Amino acid sequence: MIIISTLPNREDAKKIARTLVEKRLVACAWVLGEIQSFYIWKDQLQEDEETVLVLKVPKEKASEAINELRNLHPYEVPEIIAVEADYVLPEYLKWAKEVCEK
Amino acid sequence: MIIISTLPNREDAKKIARTLVEKRLVACAWVLGEIQSFYIWKDQLQEDEETVLVLKVPKEKASEAINELRNLHPYEVPEIIAVEADYVLPEYLKWAKEVCEK
Amino acid sequence: MIIISTLPNREDAKKIARTLVEKRLVACAWVLGEIQSFYIWKDQLQEDEETVLVLKVPKEKASEAINELRNLHPYEVPEIIAVEADYVLPEYLKWAKEVCEK
Repeated sequence: MIIISTLPNREDAKKIARTLVEKRLVACAWVLGEIQSFYIWKDQLQEDEETVLVLKVPKEKASEAINELRNLHPYEVPEIIAVEADYVLPEYLKWAKEVCEK
Repeated sequence: MIIISTLPNREDAKKIARTLVEKRLVACAWVLGEIQSFYIWKDQLQEDEETVLVLKVPKEKASEAINELRNLHPYEVPEIIAVEADYVLPEYLKWAKEVCEK
Repeated sequence: MIIISTLPNREDAKKIARTLVEKRLVACAWVLGEIQSFYIWKDQLQEDEETVLVLKVPKEKASEAINELRNLHPYEVPEIIAVEADYVLPEYLKWAKEVCEK
């Protein structure tokens, strides 16, 4: 599974990435560069600089990872979206499962 | 639904992001940093700097958002791809639906 | 299909992008900006700067593209993940198929 979430800045994103990887709740985490986010909040257009956190986790571990991400996330209503991969290189999937089982 | 499209530059991407969010056709839009795009056009390898626009919209509203994105897009044949999310945090999905219903 | 892989740097990513596009194995390739990757390797938390390569290819050509990406990739166990698009703008899909058929 690929889990995607936005964070207010890279430091917050890195902190969560380290925690989830060290707890073996995800196999790998990416922190992307700055993005510009546009959305309506209290009827006003908001334009914020945010960062995207991308987590890769074996499907059977996804809900555990999402729950911990939810707990660690600084937003009241965080954007947490997940997409299932239709293909994963078998050697990479094997490694990801081993990493998340320890 | 996650809709992805490439735009020639960040200003074009931001303009479209603002329009789609203000028209409540999408819940949220991201404009990523510069990317390098490689493709064949008239039998020649092209290497362009582009920007990626990522739109998040409740599934039932996706075709309306795609149509408007198509109308606003500066390219003759734009790259517009959409992927359905397999999981969305319930509170976030509720917020997204409310925003797109107004 | 959207194929995603991480590479150690932008030059490696660009080299592979050019090769796959020139060989008509993919319709288009993106090289994103620098990302921070977090993962466990030999029981140690690793924090590396990497680059993300994103490939777009008609579904029927995906396995050929993945095999060539595997051959060209500098990592022993590369992250290669693919997600099927639920929607592609018809004109773009037509162009992508034509490009990959030559």
